[in-house]
Amino acid sequence: MNTPLSPDFPAHVVANYDKLNAMRLIKATLTNIEEGAVEVHVPHWDGIEQQHGYIHGGIVGMIADTAAGFAAMTVTPADASVLTVEYKLNFVAPSKGEKLIARGAVIRAGQTLIVTKADVYGIAAGVETLCAVMQQTIIVKHASTAPHE
Amino acid sequence: MNTPLSPDFPAHVVANYDKLNAMRLIKATLTNIEEGAVEVHVPHWDGIEQQHGYIHGGIVGMIADTAAGFAAMTVTPADASVLTVEYKLNFVAPSKGEKLIARGAVIRAGQTLIVTKADVYGIAAGVETLCAVMQQTIIVKHASTAPHE
Amino acid sequence: MNTPLSPDFPAHVVANYDKLNAMRLIKATLTNIEEGAVEVHVPHWDGIEQQHGYIHGGIVGMIADTAAGFAAMTVTPADASVLTVEYKLNFVAPSKGEKLIARGAVIRAGQTLIVTKADVYGIAAGVETLCAVMQQTIIVKHASTAPHE
Amino acid sequence: MNTPLSPDFPAHVVANYDKLNAMRLIKATLTNIEEGAVEVHVPHWDGIEQQHGYIHGGIVGMIADTAAGFAAMTVTPADASVLTVEYKLNFVAPSKGEKLIARGAVIRAGQTLIVTKADVYGIAAGVETLCAVMQQTIIVKHASTAPHE
Repeated sequence: MNTPLSPDFPAHVVANYDKLNAMRLIKATLTNIEEGAVEVHVPHWDGIEQQHGYIHGGIVGMIADTAAGFAAMTVTPADASVLTVEYKLNFVAPSKGEKLIARGAVIRAGQTLIVTKADVYGIAAGVETLCAVMQQTIIVKHASTAPHE
Repeated sequence: MNTPLSPDFPAHVVANYDKLNAMRLIKATLTNIEEGAVEVHVPHWDGIEQQHGYIHGGIVGMIADTAAGFAAMTVTPADASVLTVEYKLNFVAPSKGEKLIARGAVIRAGQTLIVTKADVYGIAAGVETLCAVMQQTIIVKHASTAPHE
Repeated sequence: MNTPLSPDFPAHVVANYDKLNAMRLIKATLTNIEEGAVEVHVPHWDGIEQQHGYIHGGIVGMIADTAAGFAAMTVTPADASVLTVEYKLNFVAPSKGEKLIARGAVIRAGQTLIVTKADVYGIAAGVETLCAVMQQTIIVKHASTAPHE
Repeated sequence: MNTPLSPDFPAHVVANYDKLNAMRLIKATLTNIEEGAVEVHVPHWDGIEQQHGYIHGGIVGMIADTAAGFAAMTVTPADASVLTVEYKLNFVAPSKGEKLIARGAVIRAGQTLIVTKADVYGIAAGVETLCAVMQQTIIVKHASTAPHE
């Protein structure tokens, strides 16, 4: 990216995350913020379950999408915004355990588009099991440009 | 599909939907159940918003995934279960309006795999605006077969 | 789109298509060019087969990607270019028949991004069978802007 | 997988690849076959170019799909067959260089479904540049089961 990141990008990322009511609703939190990678954690609680007592796949999608999108935000100028263009998610195992961790990471950052990924793990008794993998496209809306659409 | 559907498949589908705590959490409801198609509606309320006051994209993904998956359930024997293998979602406009409607539909139903789609619309003052399109793969776990994995 | 299309956009589209050696290699042709939709046809010949004598899935992907991308070109100013950002393709039946037809269409055209789709059919004795469905994202590189990356 | 692989799975994989006329047409070769991973290489030649002299994106899709599918075959019993259910491909850079290498790998192998990935690199003067990333779902058709569809 051409514009240097602010050295306090973690605080910028957290401030943006804290505005998301929907993530608060499901009790998901943002953590382990690095340049190009973040994690979103969600505890297993009954409000987000499906019929078999596992965490609902929709919640897996929400935290994967968010983790990868915020990973993109860590490599984007603070006065720009990031939007999800699209993502594709494969479920590979049931979402079991005491909590889920979505690890978002940047694959390649361009000026306009950022390609990212997220792996989602279920944590049971300290053991991590991969339960979903996602590939995502993010668009950067730079402050200096007119709105695109 | 080889096994005839029960004539009361709508009741079967509703009974399964009602077990999903996560859909209740976001106040989403299942409606307009037909053979090969269902709708999931979610009202706009502050608990599911993102930072700009629109409905969070993760909620869009949840209702798209669920609408398409339940459309698949309408063409599946009652003693089988359906699981999302994967889906791919494009956002095409912000999720504005008083409510969102996800329209799920079956594209092609095979014995093991069902390919589906969902279109998500924002409803504002009675006007529908397309805000997301999804393509999905569902696997059918038949009662007569051993568990696959 | 803000810039009016040239009334001779079909000729513009054909001129671009004719530069694609790879499409000539597989004997695919562009036809039925309308605003927002085109078709790519490929005859069944032995050079593009897989091991069972059907047309190879990679050829299905090539013509789906190309049909949807050229559908996007029909709604793009002639001095801009279109690039595939990504696509997702489901195979739903073997690629049988005397030829394949990929029907590309624009779902929603924004200033920067265009979301498209393609359905691919096998034609056997005049009967069309759906064999693949694709959802795609296209980026428009406008002549008036600096290169993005 | 429950069924042990034959120790000569590389020969089995090569024999299957050699039946693919379409891969021969584009001059692509299979190499570096390991358990869970293979590579497909294609030299840059004029027959597979697009309008700017790069390798056409459709060729990138063909080799990515094939590399990941054959990676799945390396972990599948020799009397079973593998079919691509779907894949999703992001282009992240133009396909430049003297050749392309698609590296396919298994992410998770279940009894019925295998989730795979492929990364495609352009090789120019010995330097590798990532030009596409793909995520894919494969279905295994076991010899002991009736055809699914």
